[in-house]
Amino acid sequence: MVIAVLGPAGTFSHEVAVALTGAEPLLLPTISAVFVLAEKGEAIGIVPIENSEAGGVGPTLDGLCRYDVKITGECYLPVHHTLASFVSIEEVTEIYAHPQTHEQCSEAFDRLDLPVIHTSSNAASALKAQENRQAAAAISEAAAAYYRIPIILRNLENSTTNTTRFIRIEKNGYSGEDAVKCSVLIDPMKDVPGLLHALLSPFAERKINLSRIESRPSGRGIGSYRFFLDFEAGALAEDAINELKKTVPIREFGCYPKLLVQI
Amino acid sequence: MVIAVLGPAGTFSHEVAVALTGAEPLLLPTISAVFVLAEKGEAIGIVPIENSEAGGVGPTLDGLCRYDVKITGECYLPVHHTLASFVSIEEVTEIYAHPQTHEQCSEAFDRLDLPVIHTSSNAASALKAQENRQAAAAISEAAAAYYRIPIILRNLENSTTNTTRFIRIEKNGYSGEDAVKCSVLIDPMKDVPGLLHALLSPFAERKINLSRIESRPSGRGIGSYRFFLDFEAGALAEDAINELKKTVPIREFGCYPKLLVQI
Repeated sequence: MVIAVLGPAGTFSHEVAVALTGAEPLLLPTISAVFVLAEKGEAIGIVPIENSEAGGVGPTLDGLCRYDVKITGECYLPVHHTLASFVSIEEVTEIYAHPQTHEQCSEAFDRLDLPVIHTSSNAASALKAQENRQAAAAISEAAAAYYRIPIILRNLENSTTNTTRFIRIEKNGYSGEDAVKCSVLIDPMKDVPGLLHALLSPFAERKINLSRIESRPSGRGIGSYRFFLDFEAGALAEDAINELKKTVPIREFGCYPKLLVQI
Repeated sequence: MVIAVLGPAGTFSHEVAVALTGAEPLLLPTISAVFVLAEKGEAIGIVPIENSEAGGVGPTLDGLCRYDVKITGECYLPVHHTLASFVSIEEVTEIYAHPQTHEQCSEAFDRLDLPVIHTSSNAASALKAQENRQAAAAISEAAAAYYRIPIILRNLENSTTNTTRFIRIEKNGYSGEDAVKCSVLIDPMKDVPGLLHALLSPFAERKINLSRIESRPSGRGIGSYRFFLDFEAGALAEDAINELKKTVPIREFGCYPKLLVQI
């Protein structure tokens, strides 16, 4: 089965797909397009869901709401940003960077004290640096290699623990025995005091470790939310889900293992 | 006191500041820069905190974590996107749009079936449409007026309830009697089963309406979070905060009124 990820070449999604499978993935223009192919069963998708600095990835969370897919694995990619340019750091006159890359490297950028021009993607930064040879691009090592731009500074990121979590999405759920985590989407449809507290009770009572909660707009107007929950897999988790189902609509993305990325 | 917002001219922040004060605000290059001036007491900042389609605004949530400011008001701006161009819709060959604008107008874009080129901001889209007269920019009505580009299509947004919530940030807290909402940041510093459930108990027990919960990365590595809570103001809310303070570190942003935007 083909692996589909957000392109263009040199994205972190591209990097993680190659690391997981050893093969070149299909590169698509949007995260939604990855979900469309996964829902049809025409591809296995790999999409970023959260970053330890920037938080949740909106288009992926919205894709999970909109498309009928299951989560069949997760993996973690340490994120390193580099500065790539055809001239030395002393000669660089400006830096091209995606706003999120800028946010993740803000301390190094402040020290460099050069004008920063925002672009629409890390690949766009690389292409700009190919055109304007006095400039540098803040991109991944993989992107610098792909676009053949020399790396002049490494580890620009503010945090040494900067990590992005990816999920594998497929038409059908995971059925192996080694699942470690489960994910659900709860859409309460109404807003009453104590609601979220009540939704968490089935987990708290069973001492199930809730590894993540993320609220997303419900699409029914401001102040109305849906909740993504991730929690540890196991018999107790099934119990908790069954109890929750009695009170609120739940979508289950299934339980899944951790995939190892070797880079 | 000067009002500071994220620029350039024609952003929704610019529009809301003019609507609230009737005066031209100081336009700054980043949301962080707005926080810096507000923390020093040199400006009143107005920054977007959440959108009913796209969710929380990361740089604002991170600014609240990093800078010592209070929230002194909130207001809601209905968001309308328009297509602006010097040629008619039949002649348009491509559309410039910020990725978030693209996301909020995805259904209209699908119907138009034109190539979409992503830009770094709505203002950048407007400037591109000024340069390339065969193109259109997906921007606000205020931006189209500011950059003097004719509007050729209105209400591109998927959702008719598309709304952005803004907060007013200042060095000192609000002390009026008409506060309706309070905001706090909880940083649990550790992760134990049932923790979030326990954090919500003081509110649930008092039947206090929790209007919003948003998790943000703690900066201590992936899987570690801080929580923003918004809840209704009042004596019971003070009680709940005092109880919470006994168990976890809390930052209080204060209680504040709803400001009316007249557009």
